[in-house]
Amino acid sequence: MFAHNKRLQYTVRVSGSNPGLANLLLEQFGGPQGELAAAMRYFTQYVAEEDPGRKDMLIDIATEELSHLEVIGTLVAMLNRGAKGKLAEATEKEADLYRSIHGAGNDSHVTQVLFGGGPALINSGGQLWNSGYIDSIGDPSCDLRSNIAAEARAKIIYERLINLTDDAGVKEALGFLMTREVSHQQSFEKALYSMQPNFPPGKLPPDPRFANAYFNMSEGEGDTRGPWNSDENFEFFDSADAGPIDGDGSATVKLKADETKALQALVSRTASDPDSNPETGADLGAGKATA
Amino acid sequence: MFAHNKRLQYTVRVSGSNPGLANLLLEQFGGPQGELAAAMRYFTQYVAEEDPGRKDMLIDIATEELSHLEVIGTLVAMLNRGAKGKLAEATEKEADLYRSIHGAGNDSHVTQVLFGGGPALINSGGQLWNSGYIDSIGDPSCDLRSNIAAEARAKIIYERLINLTDDAGVKEALGFLMTREVSHQQSFEKALYSMQPNFPPGKLPPDPRFANAYFNMSEGEGDTRGPWNSDENFEFFDSADAGPIDGDGSATVKLKADETKALQALVSRTASDPDSNPETGADLGAGKATA
Amino acid sequence: MFAHNKRLQYTVRVSGSNPGLANLLLEQFGGPQGELAAAMRYFTQYVAEEDPGRKDMLIDIATEELSHLEVIGTLVAMLNRGAKGKLAEATEKEADLYRSIHGAGNDSHVTQVLFGGGPALINSGGQLWNSGYIDSIGDPSCDLRSNIAAEARAKIIYERLINLTDDAGVKEALGFLMTREVSHQQSFEKALYSMQPNFPPGKLPPDPRFANAYFNMSEGEGDTRGPWNSDENFEFFDSADAGPIDGDGSATVKLKADETKALQALVSRTASDPDSNPETGADLGAGKATA
Amino acid sequence: MFAHNKRLQYTVRVSGSNPGLANLLLEQFGGPQGELAAAMRYFTQYVAEEDPGRKDMLIDIATEELSHLEVIGTLVAMLNRGAKGKLAEATEKEADLYRSIHGAGNDSHVTQVLFGGGPALINSGGQLWNSGYIDSIGDPSCDLRSNIAAEARAKIIYERLINLTDDAGVKEALGFLMTREVSHQQSFEKALYSMQPNFPPGKLPPDPRFANAYFNMSEGEGDTRGPWNSDENFEFFDSADAGPIDGDGSATVKLKADETKALQALVSRTASDPDSNPETGADLGAGKATA
Amino acid sequence: MFAHNKRLQYTVRVSGSNPGLANLLLEQFGGPQGELAAAMRYFTQYVAEEDPGRKDMLIDIATEELSHLEVIGTLVAMLNRGAKGKLAEATEKEADLYRSIHGAGNDSHVTQVLFGGGPALINSGGQLWNSGYIDSIGDPSCDLRSNIAAEARAKIIYERLINLTDDAGVKEALGFLMTREVSHQQSFEKALYSMQPNFPPGKLPPDPRFANAYFNMSEGEGDTRGPWNSDENFEFFDSADAGPIDGDGSATVKLKADETKALQALVSRTASDPDSNPETGADLGAGKATA
Amino acid sequence: MFAHNKRLQYTVRVSGSNPGLANLLLEQFGGPQGELAAAMRYFTQYVAEEDPGRKDMLIDIATEELSHLEVIGTLVAMLNRGAKGKLAEATEKEADLYRSIHGAGNDSHVTQVLFGGGPALINSGGQLWNSGYIDSIGDPSCDLRSNIAAEARAKIIYERLINLTDDAGVKEALGFLMTREVSHQQSFEKALYSMQPNFPPGKLPPDPRFANAYFNMSEGEGDTRGPWNSDENFEFFDSADAGPIDGDGSATVKLKADETKALQALVSRTASDPDSNPETGADLGAGKATA
Repeated sequence: MFAHNKRLQYTVRVSGSNPGLANLLLEQFGGPQGELAAAMRYFTQYVAEEDPGRKDMLIDIATEELSHLEVIGTLVAMLNRGAKGKLAEATEKEADLYRSIHGAGNDSHVTQVLFGGGPALINSGGQLWNSGYIDSIGDPSCDLRSNIAAEARAKIIYERLINLTDDAGVKEALGFLMTREVSHQQSFEKALYSMQPNFPPGKLPPDPRFANAYFNMSEGEGDTRGPWNSDENFEFFDSADAGPIDGDGSATVKLKADETKALQALVSRTASDPDSNPETGADLGAGKATA
Repeated sequence: MFAHNKRLQYTVRVSGSNPGLANLLLEQFGGPQGELAAAMRYFTQYVAEEDPGRKDMLIDIATEELSHLEVIGTLVAMLNRGAKGKLAEATEKEADLYRSIHGAGNDSHVTQVLFGGGPALINSGGQLWNSGYIDSIGDPSCDLRSNIAAEARAKIIYERLINLTDDAGVKEALGFLMTREVSHQQSFEKALYSMQPNFPPGKLPPDPRFANAYFNMSEGEGDTRGPWNSDENFEFFDSADAGPIDGDGSATVKLKADETKALQALVSRTASDPDSNPETGADLGAGKATA
Repeated sequence: MFAHNKRLQYTVRVSGSNPGLANLLLEQFGGPQGELAAAMRYFTQYVAEEDPGRKDMLIDIATEELSHLEVIGTLVAMLNRGAKGKLAEATEKEADLYRSIHGAGNDSHVTQVLFGGGPALINSGGQLWNSGYIDSIGDPSCDLRSNIAAEARAKIIYERLINLTDDAGVKEALGFLMTREVSHQQSFEKALYSMQPNFPPGKLPPDPRFANAYFNMSEGEGDTRGPWNSDENFEFFDSADAGPIDGDGSATVKLKADETKALQALVSRTASDPDSNPETGADLGAGKATA
Repeated sequence: MFAHNKRLQYTVRVSGSNPGLANLLLEQFGGPQGELAAAMRYFTQYVAEEDPGRKDMLIDIATEELSHLEVIGTLVAMLNRGAKGKLAEATEKEADLYRSIHGAGNDSHVTQVLFGGGPALINSGGQLWNSGYIDSIGDPSCDLRSNIAAEARAKIIYERLINLTDDAGVKEALGFLMTREVSHQQSFEKALYSMQPNFPPGKLPPDPRFANAYFNMSEGEGDTRGPWNSDENFEFFDSADAGPIDGDGSATVKLKADETKALQALVSRTASDPDSNPETGADLGAGKATA
Repeated sequence: MFAHNKRLQYTVRVSGSNPGLANLLLEQFGGPQGELAAAMRYFTQYVAEEDPGRKDMLIDIATEELSHLEVIGTLVAMLNRGAKGKLAEATEKEADLYRSIHGAGNDSHVTQVLFGGGPALINSGGQLWNSGYIDSIGDPSCDLRSNIAAEARAKIIYERLINLTDDAGVKEALGFLMTREVSHQQSFEKALYSMQPNFPPGKLPPDPRFANAYFNMSEGEGDTRGPWNSDENFEFFDSADAGPIDGDGSATVKLKADETKALQALVSRTASDPDSNPETGADLGAGKATA
Repeated sequence: MFAHNKRLQYTVRVSGSNPGLANLLLEQFGGPQGELAAAMRYFTQYVAEEDPGRKDMLIDIATEELSHLEVIGTLVAMLNRGAKGKLAEATEKEADLYRSIHGAGNDSHVTQVLFGGGPALINSGGQLWNSGYIDSIGDPSCDLRSNIAAEARAKIIYERLINLTDDAGVKEALGFLMTREVSHQQSFEKALYSMQPNFPPGKLPPDPRFANAYFNMSEGEGDTRGPWNSDENFEFFDSADAGPIDGDGSATVKLKADETKALQALVSRTASDPDSNPETGADLGAGKATA
């Protein structure tokens, strides 16, 4: 069960209206690396988790991410606060309003016109948030790795946003949020490695014939060796040798008699004639038709 | 530049028609953890990568994933091959065709009716593939972690599919594909750790005041301590202490005079009256209206 | 700032494994009328709300909806709990697992294979949740009406789910959730009508020439009069009279000389010849070509 | 059956090319509150409606909304008409065309490049229209409330667009469209209340134990009382008392022996060790590894 | 301006309830090849079309497709009509309702639970309709070809549905709808070829160096020659000769000094060390760590 | 099986940084008419194709489109290359970075902030790529027509992009890509017409009663005759005669007794009263309530 306290987890002090910046910050409100994605990622894992330690950690961090969603959403609301009154009350001339909506130079017109200045669950380009951003699959050795990667990505998006603003209050709040991602990544790392073994993920062992092969599928200038494909760690094959291990690389299926018959009818009905050179619609369209 | 050889990377031998199984396999053709997502994940990273070693590795693996997409798609095509002729040629009575379409017991009707038995870029539930499944952000310390997690997830989905089929040829091909994910994960791990330091990701350091804090945001029975929140690794706070570090947790923005005036007009026009007890539409609808 | 208590808002007692029912319940977890949509609808309104009374109410209810999300997600997890171990550990023969996955008769195979039995933010048909489900636009006379309608819809979906299950514990928990929607609707109704006037929404008055017109755009057997189009309440027009009020119903724009010239070039280049009877690609394809 | 008359329902007179404004107007063509969403919302309800009065009203209004879709689409086409010839015929220098495409200052480049200046079923931010915007569920007490809310929202979006343009012809046409939303809302209101009772929606009564409870889930400065949570109308609980009514708020499911055994195997295989302090990937990445 | 007549374009006589079939028919209501996609495809082209002949044809056919949408939607409503009352009124035992919902064997549970038996703008697999199904780009030589292809596809989907049902009334109505697609295709063909030339599309001529090249990018058993790559029609190259025409196939961009400097900093900071063999997270997870 | 050569199919020479142009080019990387859509369209058809000639052609062209995806993605990467270092390394003042991100004047801020300058599978408006862009249905007479149309559309989008840039290297590469679309269209045309007959598509003949009818569904000024509706080619009906061929255009279904009873209960419970004039929520909201 959740409860809420009206104090924010981090005090928000914005130095002035800036709908364009508000729009960029939506990336972390309703974008793929944003706080809703984070909160829902951990919350859905929490609900089905069986291990008591991981379960507790997941809901601790999910709850904190909801609190971060509130902080970033509040930043957006504050940056848009001055503009929303003007549009709702029509206190400026139409052309001035139009210019101010476009002057922000990005999709902030969407936020203003469609959402009235409130924070929306879209990214900075107006793309609706969707749950395809969440990649949990209910296996802890996978989900913890996914969480580690997600925290790393969120850290970088915050870093880029910090590099783009000189509003001290916004910068400071973003710095807090960025830092917490680093901390969460550390918790997920500890949780992953406190489960041993965690590699390879799952229960089924890999087939030893292919587990250490590296196929050099791209050839030409730029071929490089390193620990990711070195002889020390891998068996190295050129693309010419990456082919069918056994057999001829063909595909077969055993069909029943009625299936074969129906398929053959389909094949005959739709066969192409390789020996023809038919007049085509393009010929007609290019004026090449002989008719 | 890509080239193609008509031999598959792994020989496909399917023992009989099975549209229902074909449909499950779509999870790895057009699903979030599937081969198109993998190929495009690494290919898009390749295009923008500056480091010669990572760049080479990314395109090697992207190209192999395209070859896997061909293998899994071919499995789907073989499993559907017997059914597609029957529907196209209408060689059975309507009711028999209807029953066979539904007898598969899952969304294979979509594959048959809409896609004519060909493999479609949808998951096993019919959801269109979308590029939100790809989480690359152009930072190697993030993207390599994302790749590691993606390979782990793909491994598990293959494992679950293997657990569900007793067609020996399908099982064998899936085992090959599953194993390659393990191998790729190892390459990405080597690449990540051959870049030092890689933690924390990015350039901007975390704020030391918050970097090692753990907030116990969920309390009650089930609270557990472990390395992910131990005193050895973190400074542990109860949720009551997770609140605003400085200030009062409020949100403020400095508005200009005309902004304040417009906002105030909006507030007044839409104010609620807390002291009223208005008759409502629900009252009217419940027959409680006093009129 | 949010906090969490590990007790659920409603005790969940499920009488046995039932992945098919779990899948139906996803409708209220990750479906359009589900609890995430509700929680995010009110939460995003809360962040930008200026009226203190509405603001407080919105976050009270948003927080409760998050607690409901936890209850419905936990129901899903309990119903899937018995199945997930079998698939992960492969404790049954493949064919038995396959049959049990399909025996549920709906998209529960997606939940099992892709999400490992955990609750996913999809509806019962596997459609990814997206924020287009949320229709907040930042105007209280609209958003409160949207909230009223959303609570009514959620009530009905719960009612339908209750009608479909005879698991007493599931039924009871769904009954609690259904009831709370009724209660929330009442709060939103009170809030709407405590803001006076609230109709018409917004500030700009309707044009009196069209505000009370009713256009009978569909004619024929079935035409019905009632308070929604009665002479008492509306000015009633037949579709023949619903046409252009002034002018001729045409569309014009004033173009500059260079615009007109470019447009004319486009028109000429792509003009059709109404007096021709050209041979077409379809003619070629039907064997009707005269060439 | 539909028929069409080439006269528009409202004469469109646009004073000059303006692709940027065209793009904003797309909000009501292919946006969530736009005319296609409205037309399809009422049309799909119409098809399944059993009540003769509502059925007639729904198709009357659906048909009018299609006519509005034509008006708003025509406004977009007129505003883009001057630009489309220039791009198709390349009558300007590349750099001038590029500048004019970007000079519009919003997503009008998408409309020009991808759609050749025609109206597209996207919102003003380029988001594809999807049927998740339609919230009909086949219950009249819900659908009519949804329709009322939808008309209110559409009215406000038109109001905001009117506030942004000083093209008199565009303003006038938008004023017509805005007014009709007010009129439609009135019809839906009359239809809702001519069905008695309509609250609570559906057939199943709420559980009287919870139907009038108000849970104060968010506490702290800002707590406000009003008719939406007053003692007159509700039983008021603090969040501490919002917890499990009966039982302990836990979740249980009765599993069969083989289910329990498989689950236990899964739990053991993936258990975390709370007493460890493992070296992690982050340690390796931060150079903290002890190896 | 649209008008509506309550008579359907084709009389609908359904022989009995069949929610499973209803669900399949959704493919042509809210699926990619369905009637809404068709109607909106032609309607949006109509709005922006300049040629009087094509403009008239487009709205004639768009209006007919809307009438078809009504026919197919009505078929869905009739097939679901018997079931919707049972669920809404709960006139059967829960388990019987549950079985009947699942007995349909496809996604008809979504239609019943979420949409109350009304036709929804989803395909037969529950996927939301989205405007990405419409491929109009505002060039008549393209759009007419797109329309021709769309009519062909719709014809085939109707053919498959006809093959699946033995309800005579449904079969007959589907036959009408299928036939109209053939007729529309013919109109679009005539319109395309009455615009001369129409190939190649657009104004800019292709580069003669590459316009007739055929690159044999896939080699191996299965290579086939036919009119699509014959020497008569094309200049045939092997994949080895498909490479860079001029230059070396590399990619270059001229950067300014400050850009180069920033890029170099990025490259250095994130360089991988090809000569290392670092311990990785996978090593830790596999118990291979040496620490 | 695919292989890769590190040389591009066309040498890329970009004259300078230009994130705004990069963003426009995304239209052909991750947009609906772009190279990924093309490659996947032909690749998925290839996998299921039975005809040897078409199968070979499809994979040849699919493979070339993947090579084009690499060219267009590389153009994007080169145009963004100068900017990405600045943002990642923060080598400029925040305000300067912010201005340069917005100065590009379109959605390039998304590319920079979210994707770090790498090419993303989105269109120029930030819309995620989804597989709904692919319209293959597994029938060659349809799929080849779809391919022809798709190539035509891609040609035009390239033409528009060429018209917008004066960077000689970009222009030249786009010219190559544009030309190849023309060539591919020709191959698909030859393949379509080498299959005889190919019209009407499929196996089921159209109903001769409706196959040549043209319904003039839109009437009024602008009605035009041409080969697409001429008496020579079609039987021409006015909309008044487009109505139900037989019967009265009504819809009926035979229901069982229990279905009828349940339906009747639903109808009664939700009946509207046409003779009432109820007070409504709008009345309350407009202050018109009489209470």
